[in-house]
Amino acid sequence: VVEDELVAAIAQLTHRKDSRVTVGIGDDAAAWQPSRSHRSVITTDALVENVHFSLEWMSREDAGWRAMAANASDVAAMGARPRLTTIAFGVPPGARSHDILEWYRGMDACARTYGLEIAGGDLTRAPVWTIAITAIGEVRPSNLKLRSGARPGDVLAVTGAVGASRAGLFHLRGEIELDEPDRSGAIRAHRRPVARVEEGLWLAASANVHAMMDCSDGISTDVARLALASKAGAVIDTVPVDASAAAAAQQLGEDATAFALAGGEDFELIVSVAPRAFEHLSNRFQKKFGRPLFRLGTVQADERVVVVKQGREEPLERSGWDHFG
Amino acid sequence: VVEDELVAAIAQLTHRKDSRVTVGIGDDAAAWQPSRSHRSVITTDALVENVHFSLEWMSREDAGWRAMAANASDVAAMGARPRLTTIAFGVPPGARSHDILEWYRGMDACARTYGLEIAGGDLTRAPVWTIAITAIGEVRPSNLKLRSGARPGDVLAVTGAVGASRAGLFHLRGEIELDEPDRSGAIRAHRRPVARVEEGLWLAASANVHAMMDCSDGISTDVARLALASKAGAVIDTVPVDASAAAAAQQLGEDATAFALAGGEDFELIVSVAPRAFEHLSNRFQKKFGRPLFRLGTVQADERVVVVKQGREEPLERSGWDHFG
Repeated sequence: VVEDELVAAIAQLTHRKDSRVTVGIGDDAAAWQPSRSHRSVITTDALVENVHFSLEWMSREDAGWRAMAANASDVAAMGARPRLTTIAFGVPPGARSHDILEWYRGMDACARTYGLEIAGGDLTRAPVWTIAITAIGEVRPSNLKLRSGARPGDVLAVTGAVGASRAGLFHLRGEIELDEPDRSGAIRAHRRPVARVEEGLWLAASANVHAMMDCSDGISTDVARLALASKAGAVIDTVPVDASAAAAAQQLGEDATAFALAGGEDFELIVSVAPRAFEHLSNRFQKKFGRPLFRLGTVQADERVVVVKQGREEPLERSGWDHFG
Repeated sequence: VVEDELVAAIAQLTHRKDSRVTVGIGDDAAAWQPSRSHRSVITTDALVENVHFSLEWMSREDAGWRAMAANASDVAAMGARPRLTTIAFGVPPGARSHDILEWYRGMDACARTYGLEIAGGDLTRAPVWTIAITAIGEVRPSNLKLRSGARPGDVLAVTGAVGASRAGLFHLRGEIELDEPDRSGAIRAHRRPVARVEEGLWLAASANVHAMMDCSDGISTDVARLALASKAGAVIDTVPVDASAAAAAQQLGEDATAFALAGGEDFELIVSVAPRAFEHLSNRFQKKFGRPLFRLGTVQADERVVVVKQGREEPLERSGWDHFG
């Protein structure tokens, strides 16, 4: 993937021998050590109008929520508690103060929901709406979860069914026509995605969770990233497909699993769990959050990433979002 | 100023009663308390092509340096030591990996100079080059310097002569023709501005420095902001004008002081100093940094901000940069 290669080149260029950063470029967030007893994590996510979102399909308030949710999700994916956020905000020509404050209402509502305090920012002119949010979280050193910790034999799992956000976008674009209750759920998933902050904190407290990341670019892309970071491979044998995504796929004449695998921005967390602990963890997760920790597959030593279709292994196409593909 | 009003509205909207942030929106950076023994500060600065800079007048490497320097300067203006940075980077259509890495070379060189480690970021497509940098610094609680600490009677001072960056821009645009040595200095000031990090740390250690901020939008705008934050006024009686700015003003048939007052992005630090301590502090500053701490004027209780011209007080026009003016 072009983006991943570029990130690797940047990581090499900016590498420090005497680094104070315990986790650097390439994870959901970077971590550093402000004091002996805890770690801080930091993440930055930029959204650009007509690249990441269109105001045809959502209000400015929704778009603000989404932008903030992406950052809360990245913090949660490290096992950290969201704390602070700053917003660099680019405003297109002709926008009024009222329009700008609508964005901030959405960002603020989301920030409050996930415990992030808006600590500052920068306002500037830009050709289109451009929002770069940085979020900081805090985590006990033993709870910090990276992408790179997956071990062969681990069970891969995900905190919720995927594909709803993509189904919502297809509906909003008029490419499909979803019925209730799928319609409301899918539209909401697209406009007001949920970051799995409580789930992330809960999973981070378990030593049997070896790796964690959020699913922002689609299961197919993100499982491949987790496998690569862990110098391992993966077999995906089950994909929990949201009902709205299954309905969308049917209308499009596509395979439901393929549709859901390619759906980005569901913000579910992907975890790699010690195999003996999985069933017990999943049961406790179900009790706590009212839905199972869905099995996706397993981590394998062989570095290929494959998906099992009708009993046959096929190489996984990275069909998710690549910003530079 | 429209921008300042908008920032106030945003600050009100996002205000928290139970804030963990000890300094919020409206200073050079926000501060929070990760542990009892120290404060962290965080700042975000966005630069957009053709709004804040043009690649006609500088290389991508220079523009990268400038973007990072603005953030280092904001951290320094709080009295903090720069530590970490993240970069949200928007890449226009047609840009090659090579172009992107040129930006990172400039940002990295500047980050290394000022002790900032690049901890992460986000790459995305955008209509034009768009760079949002967040920087984090650390400071002992007693050294944290705000804009709001200026007291009537204080001496206002600045860490260097101003106007060189503006003179460099006018020269590069072909509106004036500077001779050496002004030319090289002014071009360098525009392309590779210096953040006063060591000066900031040194000044922060003095309890006689009551307030500090960096001069990024021009002395006229920024002194007015410092005065407003301190619920005070200011009389500016002397402006240390860089030789290149004086030469530029002469060619333009303008007043040198007015030209320099309006010049943004010199990144000198403005300080408000206890009057009895000023001479001694300035002498020590001179010994340490090889140039004086230049006097600008005084803080007054009366909330007007005036500049003394030929013995007469005139209200200060905020001629500096207003992103929404």
